[in-house]
Amino acid sequence: MSGRIRNRQWAAKVVEAEEAAGLIGPGENVGMSGFTGAGYPKEVPGALAKRVAVAHEHGEPMKVGLWTGASTAPELDGALAEVEGIDLRLPYQSDPVSRAKINEGRLDYTDIHLSHVAQRVWQGIYGDLDVAVVEVSGITEDGRLIPSSSVGNNKTWLEQADRVIVEVNSWQSEHLEGMHDVYYGTALPPHRRPIPITHPADRIGVPHLDCPLEKVIAVVETESPDRNGAFTPPDAISEQIAGHVLDFLELEVAAGRLPRELLPIQSGVGNVANAVLAGLENGPFHGLTAYTEVIQDGMLQLIESGRMEMASATAFSLSPTAVERFNRDAAAFRDKIVLRPQEISNHPEVVRRLGCLAMNGIVEADLYGNINSTHLMGSRIQNGIGGSGDFARNAYVSIFVTPSQAKGGDVSTIVPMVSHVDHTEHDVDVIVTEQGLADLRGLSPKQRAERVIEHCAHPDFRPALRDYFERSQRSAFGLHTPHLLDESLSWHQRYVRTGSMR
Amino acid sequence: MSGRIRNRQWAAKVVEAEEAAGLIGPGENVGMSGFTGAGYPKEVPGALAKRVAVAHEHGEPMKVGLWTGASTAPELDGALAEVEGIDLRLPYQSDPVSRAKINEGRLDYTDIHLSHVAQRVWQGIYGDLDVAVVEVSGITEDGRLIPSSSVGNNKTWLEQADRVIVEVNSWQSEHLEGMHDVYYGTALPPHRRPIPITHPADRIGVPHLDCPLEKVIAVVETESPDRNGAFTPPDAISEQIAGHVLDFLELEVAAGRLPRELLPIQSGVGNVANAVLAGLENGPFHGLTAYTEVIQDGMLQLIESGRMEMASATAFSLSPTAVERFNRDAAAFRDKIVLRPQEISNHPEVVRRLGCLAMNGIVEADLYGNINSTHLMGSRIQNGIGGSGDFARNAYVSIFVTPSQAKGGDVSTIVPMVSHVDHTEHDVDVIVTEQGLADLRGLSPKQRAERVIEHCAHPDFRPALRDYFERSQRSAFGLHTPHLLDESLSWHQRYVRTGSMR
Repeated sequence: MSGRIRNRQWAAKVVEAEEAAGLIGPGENVGMSGFTGAGYPKEVPGALAKRVAVAHEHGEPMKVGLWTGASTAPELDGALAEVEGIDLRLPYQSDPVSRAKINEGRLDYTDIHLSHVAQRVWQGIYGDLDVAVVEVSGITEDGRLIPSSSVGNNKTWLEQADRVIVEVNSWQSEHLEGMHDVYYGTALPPHRRPIPITHPADRIGVPHLDCPLEKVIAVVETESPDRNGAFTPPDAISEQIAGHVLDFLELEVAAGRLPRELLPIQSGVGNVANAVLAGLENGPFHGLTAYTEVIQDGMLQLIESGRMEMASATAFSLSPTAVERFNRDAAAFRDKIVLRPQEISNHPEVVRRLGCLAMNGIVEADLYGNINSTHLMGSRIQNGIGGSGDFARNAYVSIFVTPSQAKGGDVSTIVPMVSHVDHTEHDVDVIVTEQGLADLRGLSPKQRAERVIEHCAHPDFRPALRDYFERSQRSAFGLHTPHLLDESLSWHQRYVRTGSMR
Repeated sequence: MSGRIRNRQWAAKVVEAEEAAGLIGPGENVGMSGFTGAGYPKEVPGALAKRVAVAHEHGEPMKVGLWTGASTAPELDGALAEVEGIDLRLPYQSDPVSRAKINEGRLDYTDIHLSHVAQRVWQGIYGDLDVAVVEVSGITEDGRLIPSSSVGNNKTWLEQADRVIVEVNSWQSEHLEGMHDVYYGTALPPHRRPIPITHPADRIGVPHLDCPLEKVIAVVETESPDRNGAFTPPDAISEQIAGHVLDFLELEVAAGRLPRELLPIQSGVGNVANAVLAGLENGPFHGLTAYTEVIQDGMLQLIESGRMEMASATAFSLSPTAVERFNRDAAAFRDKIVLRPQEISNHPEVVRRLGCLAMNGIVEADLYGNINSTHLMGSRIQNGIGGSGDFARNAYVSIFVTPSQAKGGDVSTIVPMVSHVDHTEHDVDVIVTEQGLADLRGLSPKQRAERVIEHCAHPDFRPALRDYFERSQRSAFGLHTPHLLDESLSWHQRYVRTGSMR
């Protein structure tokens, strides 16, 4: 019995990863932990992938339905996709191998709002959940599970699965205990009650996950780091974007449309998001809060510096140095961070009530304010919508950020018509590039187009966008949202044909 | 002092409509009552339109910003659009004259989620609200306003406007008093609290609207019917669509995914919606409820027959004969109907909590489950998104209905790629045409395409859709959502060129 498994009955179930993986059958649906590279099981997926490879070598079909919180890591998504061991993947992925398989048409992927997953699984939409494979950071004396660096859908997996495999990862900080808030009050309609959160700090649940011992078919001990990348300092483009966002927030406060301490921040993951968080460090704002999916380095820093009072999320996504700082000062962070199940961290009800300021990255935006977050050239999946829809639709202000160009200037991220829509014109308030910021609130489509072209597009692409917009206003089928349908996707066609939109 | 104005101070403010309209200045923003042709002011808008026409004859510019609940009627939208008296129109319209002006590029229109309007106006996004023009059905002894046949945004207009004009319409039933539930508990973040509704019947507010007398600049007495069209019995196509929807609901109950009394129904307006409601009359379901925007004839009938126990909405939209029945049996309807402000009838928090079954009509759907609710051929606005986004995104099951063809068979409503997106692939559960029903829940894009083609498309268009889908899978840029960008909008292009997609 290791120090992390403080209950004898649970300790008695410890086996090797290979044995545990052997308990998962072909065709089964498997719900695994993991959100943004944090808290995913480290060993069972790899052992399962080996089993799949062996089965395939013997000509035996073997695939599983793979459900997670969100993205995981090469040891999970990558390993299972590599051996073609996944039948249907949901609700989000960002793995290069998975992505390639999906785009080759060899792996079915259903890309859904992260807040929808739990209710859909309860509803039985994806079939039965056969096995849960959940990483925890420990097991208490009375047999409750101490969650790991992400909560994700773990509560749902443990409740819904017929059989449960638990990985206890002693690499995870012991200081995580007490930081989680697992709410057991959700239900299917007509039995739903208000989610009683009115501030990001509110704790409405319990710090542990419950799982009946009789469902547990294996416990595996691991000691492996999360997929923690090194922190990249913001580049010039990201800093310019962040600067525009910060100017906008200051103007909103000055206009009386936002309180001085802002409203709870939701921030997507990535360079630009980190740059905005870094900018907040030096800006005029104090008493900040976050109600978001993921706590990145930038947010940890805001807490350390005292700028941010409270951050609610469902997962960490920290660099190795930030993890070190977290472990060193865990006590100081304990009352400033709450990790919740993703059905709560992303819940439309709470996002709307708190009035989140949602900031998310995109693939491309069009003249009229439609956003593509997921597809390259209309067909090729990048990652998925993740939580951006949960937040953008219900946010107080929904902000979308992107450099104005991609692929070394061959791609304009501002196009006549997006090749796929993830956030409609009705849900997009503000678009920001390094060129500037377009506040689209309250504008008609044509008014939006002018702002998007002049404030957001790269100067190289502005003349062509203006030309398209002007000609559209002369000969479109209607002048509410003027488009020339034989040209609207021509920039993408040109890219597919020549490798450049230019 | 007429019988409808039971307070002397309010009665002392009665003037003619022309005088009241004279109190509205050029360039002002005017918030008018009205939702789906119910409860809009009947006389001041026409008088205002006459003023605008005279001003324009004298070469004086005169336009107002026109904000409403949703659609109104020829006497309001039509009259003001006809004289080009509208600057910016929001949040929804369905008037032929307005629509023509918008599509000619002569009228700016911003088409927004109906649940977003109140918070946006409070936020100040559209500028100051100068004048409210609100129809009521009476004024109480103590000077409170008895709402009319719609509530819409009236609470917000009365709170936010600097000056208020009230129309008291004695045509409206006196029995409306007591039927409304005006919730004064909403706020801007960070001051929001849970909306305490857990059942469509819950009353959480007060039956009257408040308005400080000192803001009231005019009271106008009218006696005019709402825009109540005659009820058209369902046609064969609508009945077939309704049949598929009812079969689906029965299967969901049988599978244990819906309770026997279903969940609160939200139903868009129109023939197909009415056919579904008519179908429920003879189906196996009892104890039904509705949490919706509008109470149409079909819903009134369900209440009369005892099938429906409770309907919550923000407006009526009844035929003249249904209005008669309503007035005759008003007492019987009083405890079965609640009319709420649209910020509550469409509130994402409540829609999600109650688990609404959302049924909305569309313009077109594509292979991958994206929905266009608003635009013809990508550019020409039809009406607007209305509340369909408020409900579809947060619903328990979001169902979209349409005949498989339009324009006498020249248009397929199932197309390779929609020309505008109002509901993304992530928000669309079920698509229904007279051909059949495609349950898209849990499917990958390519799996969805197969169902949409085989279950929903008209047989005349199926071969071309299959051909597009097959060729896309051979040569698209990615095989997650295979598209051929040079063909994806070609059906719309053909229609614009030749008047037919065939």
